[in-house]
Amino acid sequence: MRLWDPATRKVVRILEGHKATVNGVAFSPDGHLLASGSSDHTVQFWDPASGQVTATLDARARVFRVAFSPDGHVLASVGRAYTVQLWDPASPQLTATLEGHIGFVNGVAFSPDGRQLASVGDDAAVRLWDPTARQPSTSLEGHTGPVLAVAFSPDGGQLATGGNDRTVRLWNVGPISNASV
Amino acid sequence: MRLWDPATRKVVRILEGHKATVNGVAFSPDGHLLASGSSDHTVQFWDPASGQVTATLDARARVFRVAFSPDGHVLASVGRAYTVQLWDPASPQLTATLEGHIGFVNGVAFSPDGRQLASVGDDAAVRLWDPTARQPSTSLEGHTGPVLAVAFSPDGGQLATGGNDRTVRLWNVGPISNASV
Repeated sequence: MRLWDPATRKVVRILEGHKATVNGVAFSPDGHLLASGSSDHTVQFWDPASGQVTATLDARARVFRVAFSPDGHVLASVGRAYTVQLWDPASPQLTATLEGHIGFVNGVAFSPDGRQLASVGDDAAVRLWDPTARQPSTSLEGHTGPVLAVAFSPDGGQLATGGNDRTVRLWNVGPISNASV
Repeated sequence: MRLWDPATRKVVRILEGHKATVNGVAFSPDGHLLASGSSDHTVQFWDPASGQVTATLDARARVFRVAFSPDGHVLASVGRAYTVQLWDPASPQLTATLEGHIGFVNGVAFSPDGRQLASVGDDAAVRLWDPTARQPSTSLEGHTGPVLAVAFSPDGGQLATGGNDRTVRLWNVGPISNASV
């Protein structure tokens, strides 16, 4: 549906398709795709130009957050599935299920160069993944309660996390060098 | 505190100062500042190089999310104060309290050019602010329940929002032109 609001002079399109709360939205870096994650256990892809849904994909549990990789080739989703799910927006299909968390996964972030993916969860874990190699993650131990917030520094060298244990933690996640230790 | 984990070869700094859950973290675009928002009703600024807190500022209510403007000159925070609070990281101090929401504010995002700020709240409102002019916001009406998610398109022309009413809404928020209507 497309509406024109004369009061605000704004066009709005109503994208209908999810069957429960929409918890996260993200545009692809080129702006040609919109992704959404919902409590209806799906990830949906939309064409922002037409407002049409282009795919509805089964995420098997509530989706809290979605994030595109910097090159736009991967969408990561997290939520109640206890996993990080990686989706190929082009096919579109699920390409990987990253296992390791033992609780809800609350947040996800790609490093600016796209070579690392960080996830944080109710299991107090911060996990660091290589989104291409499909290897087991590095587990960054220390938080003593659910972790809610995650952000990479602009240069990708640091990861900041925060949560219920009242601390912010700064992890050195760049390449190992003498300077970094 | 600074720790070295031989298992993961990661350095971690534990940033202690908040007195309750840390809900949001963000790095400034130049990477020289880290901001956090907490249920202890404060926004804190940290030096990511030293791990030292540089300011603890009273936000008057639980802070859910923090976001830096693209030029790094403004930090926006939202939460249970029913407002969008703008902070000057340099002073550091509160520079503006943007009023209009009549419920918890769940999300905040700057447009890529920094000229617009969008906030979404439990009052079903999507509000669009000029972070410099301090003018009343444009209210984007339509959602019929709490709004949880918000993202600008990379070109700043569209705003995507989503929430409890199960819809994603795409708002045309770029400059008014014949092409956009």
